[in-house]
This record gives sequence, C-alpha cells and structure tokens, in this order.
Amino acid sequence: MSAAVADWDAARLAGWSEPHLARVEAALSRWVGVDAPVLLGDAMRYAVLDGGKRLRPLLVLAASEAVGGNAAAALRAACATELIHAYSLVHDDLPSMDNDVLRRGKPTVHVKFGEADALLAGDALQALAFELLTPEGDEIPAATQATLCRLLARAAGSQGMAGGQAIDLASVGLALNEAQLREMHRLKTGALLQGSVEMGAACAANVAPTALAALRDYGAAIGLAFQVVDDILDVTADSETLGKTAGKDAAADKPTYVSLWGLDGARAQAKQLLAESLAALERSGLAETAALRALAHMVVDRDR
Amino acid sequence: MSAAVADWDAARLAGWSEPHLARVEAALSRWVGVDAPVLLGDAMRYAVLDGGKRLRPLLVLAASEAVGGNAAAALRAACATELIHAYSLVHDDLPSMDNDVLRRGKPTVHVKFGEADALLAGDALQALAFELLTPEGDEIPAATQATLCRLLARAAGSQGMAGGQAIDLASVGLALNEAQLREMHRLKTGALLQGSVEMGAACAANVAPTALAALRDYGAAIGLAFQVVDDILDVTADSETLGKTAGKDAAADKPTYVSLWGLDGARAQAKQLLAESLAALERSGLAETAALRALAHMVVDRDR
Repeated sequence: MSAAVADWDAARLAGWSEPHLARVEAALSRWVGVDAPVLLGDAMRYAVLDGGKRLRPLLVLAASEAVGGNAAAALRAACATELIHAYSLVHDDLPSMDNDVLRRGKPTVHVKFGEADALLAGDALQALAFELLTPEGDEIPAATQATLCRLLARAAGSQGMAGGQAIDLASVGLALNEAQLREMHRLKTGALLQGSVEMGAACAANVAPTALAALRDYGAAIGLAFQVVDDILDVTADSETLGKTAGKDAAADKPTYVSLWGLDGARAQAKQLLAESLAALERSGLAETAALRALAHMVVDRDR
Repeated sequence: MSAAVADWDAARLAGWSEPHLARVEAALSRWVGVDAPVLLGDAMRYAVLDGGKRLRPLLVLAASEAVGGNAAAALRAACATELIHAYSLVHDDLPSMDNDVLRRGKPTVHVKFGEADALLAGDALQALAFELLTPEGDEIPAATQATLCRLLARAAGSQGMAGGQAIDLASVGLALNEAQLREMHRLKTGALLQGSVEMGAACAANVAPTALAALRDYGAAIGLAFQVVDDILDVTADSETLGKTAGKDAAADKPTYVSLWGLDGARAQAKQLLAESLAALERSGLAETAALRALAHMVVDRDR
C-alpha cells in the first residue's frame, strides 16, 4: 500500500480541483432554478448550491481529462451528476424516508420549504439533469448527448440509485449478508459514482475498450469504498463534522459494513478497495490519471 | 364548427388507436419495472400498467405518423411520455400533495405500497423515461435520441410540468386571473401534452419548420383544452366515471376554468380551442393528420 499512498498529494489535488470546482459552482448557479416558478426555483437552488463535496462532478471532470474529452460536455455532465445526487438527498430526507432535518449543517429542504415543494424540487432537479445534457447547437455531438443521457438514466433508475434505495428501505432490521449488502450499495451509492466516471469517459469518442473497462472497474471500486467509509464515519464522526446526523444508521437498525465487519475490518476493506481502484487506473493505459488517483485517496481518507 | 365536428369519427379513431394502444401496452409491460428490486418494480408496474387513456402516447404516435417518423423511436417516445405522466400522478397523489386515495378506480400507489416506495417508484419512472429514449445500437439515430431527451426534459421540468405543479400548490385559495390560470395549466398539463406532439414530430428528420410550428400550436391548443375539460368534468362527472375523486378542486378551493368562466363559458372555450387545434393542423401542410384531428376531438368530447 505504501507506493499507492505515496502518490496521494492533497495539495496537488487541491490545485487541480479548485478551478474545476469554481467552474462547476458557477455553472450550477447559472443553470439551476433560474426562470423556475419562484418557490420551486428557490428550493432547487437551496438543495444544490453552496454545499457538498462535489465528488461526482470532480470524477466526471477527472475522467474526461484522462481521455481528452469535450470540455463543454464534461462540465454539463458534471453538473448533471450533482443534480441527481442532490435530488436523491432531498427525497431521501423526506419524512416518509429518512425523516432527516439536518443536511450539510443546514435545515433540509422540506424543513425549509415544506414537503410538497421539496418533492417537486427533487423531481425538477432530475429533469434538469437531462436537460443540461441535451443543449441545442453543435458544441456537443448528438452521440455524446445520447450516451450521457443513457449512462445517467441507468445510474439513477431502478437498476441504479433508486433501486438501491428501495433495497435499503426493505432491509431495515434485516441481517443482510455481505453479498446482499454489497448489492444494495453497488446500486444505492456506487451506481452514480461509477456512472460519473463513465460519463466523463463518454465525453471523448473512440476511447479504447480496455481503457473504458478499466475506468468502470475504478468507478466500481471507489463507489464501494465510498460507502464503506460512509459507514465508518457514521460511527466515528460527530454530527457537526459530518454536517448531518451521525449515528443514524445504528439508530435505525440499518445493516452497515461496520455492523458486518467491525470497525477495523471495514477500515481494512476501504484500503483494499483503494488499492483495487489504483490498480484499475494502472491497467487503463491512460497517461493522465493523477486526478483520478487523488480522488480515490480523497474518498477513502475523508473525514466527512 | 360543424365542418370541424363532422370529421370526428369515433369508430375510425378506435380503428387507428387499438393496434397502437396494444403496442404501447405490450412495450410498457416489457420495459417497466422488470429487473427492478421486487417491491419497487411492483410499484412501478402498478403505477403504469392497466390504466389510463394513454393520450400522450397516442399523440406521439399520431404526430410521428403525420411526419413519417422512425417507428421504433415513436414507440419509445410514446412510452416515455406515459412514464412521466404516471410518475407525476404517483407523486401528486402523495399525502404531502393532493393526498388522494383513488386513481383510475384503484387505490393510489402509496396506499398500496407505502409512501416511501411510491416516492421511489415515481423517481425511478422518470429515470426510466430517459433510459427508454436512449437505447444502444443504431436503430434510432443519436440526433433523434438527444432531441427526444431534450424535449421530454423541458416538458417535465421546472419550466414545464413540475413548474406548473409548484404554481398550483402556491395558488390554493388565491383568486388567479385568467392569464395566471392559463400559465399554470400551460405548464402543469399543457407542457407534456404539447411535448408529446413535438416528440412525435421529432421522430423524423427534416420536418419543415412551418409544419413543426403548426404542430406545436396544435399541441398548445389541445393541452389547454384538456385542462378546461378536466375542470368541467371535475364539476359534472361522478367519481366512478372519472375513476378518481370528483369535486376535489372545489373542495380544495383551487382556481379552475369553471370557477373563472362558469360551466357554459368553459364549454364554449373548449370548443374554441378544438377549432384552433384543427386550424393548426390545416396550416401544417401535412397530409396524414386524421388521427391528430380525431385525438383533438377525443380530448374535448371525453367524459372521463
């Protein structure tokens, strides 16, 4: 692991990500909730702007750079993945789901705007994600637009994120085995993280199939690692650091990697998944993977 | 009006629509909720299958035939519009929205499956709509796929259906004037009906701009007519015929075309909009508009 850890350079990641994050924030602010009926637009912007690690957008942008993708397509894809993520949080926080009142250190959308507008804001954010991917004009080839929509729809739908949330709902209080837990998280969190990597790769045409397959493997490994670390942080971090309610999985008697493997076992597994993700990047044959490597480290080493 | 009414032929419409409806039903049954986690898949299928007039799919198919569109694209677009419509009903029926327990004569999705799965089923249906529009392979050109996604996303989002629902929410108990009421319904119901016509037209390349503009006008007129007739039926029909709770707009003190114009005024306006829609088809210069004409009549003359 030492060689793998050595190429993690927080300062270098920050130098790469800061201008990208600034572009993503500016684009989201320009595109989200503008010209929407007033309360809906406000709720959409509240759900999306000024918060979040923007991990999915960074994965899109890093993967697109690794393959030499169309920058305009990558920026739109980056924002689209964040809109899907944001809408899922809004709906997940609703009283009929997790009934959470705190998110990113702020009142959740339904606490601030009411349940009905929170529901509609989530719905509208999902539609907006696909609208962003399909601009008129020829800056982004139609084939790229169609592929991005396909990847995002699959990542978000019943065989992706929404499917994983449904399994999660149905599993409260059940003793899932490792395979079941892994399948739930592969869909619930992993699908959109892996989809973000694939969408970044889809911003270029003619990427070698071996490189695409390796990037998919990378995405799958960090997708799973993300959830393992989430489960660890749910136990070890406090609500203030997390910006959301800590300890809620245990309180809800939800199965987690920590309940399955214990804290040390989960930490070991996170390191193993980091190593797998880095090995996949090696296999890709792509030259510019420093940002993807750094993001994998960030996923595993984060404290919130 | 007499010439316009004369070309309405219910038997001829039925002869045209029956095989199309059979294809739509078969496609929906093949595509919706299959391979989804079990309760989610069941909720998705319950929300979509075996119910509804399928007006939006019929509009897509009729418009596509009018322009000589790609049949595979039209079938997918037809199903996609129905999925968006179905998801909007599932979410609209939730306790935090209209809190309705009866839809198409059956318990609503959340009554049958619980609120959380109803929420997720709606979310997954929206994603599936875009997945259907973007199949792999070359049966449907990428440019068509991208255009269909763009039109559907705009029709469904904050400047379409979701936006109209948000205005509707905010307007309960307010005395909207005609312009405000028209704007609400243009978004809430009209955008997806008009979008269905536009999506059908987008299944062919190189449709004349004048024909496209005329089809948009047709879609706008029947979109508005649909809502005017809905408001009339909310007053005049019983719950059993409607398959949903009648009189609920008045009970909720919601502004309607009937509250604005009275019953006779609303009926006169519906006839006027029918005439406008037929005039738009005349302007289109398209030869095969019999099905679109018949659908316009169906929208205005329906009793449920």
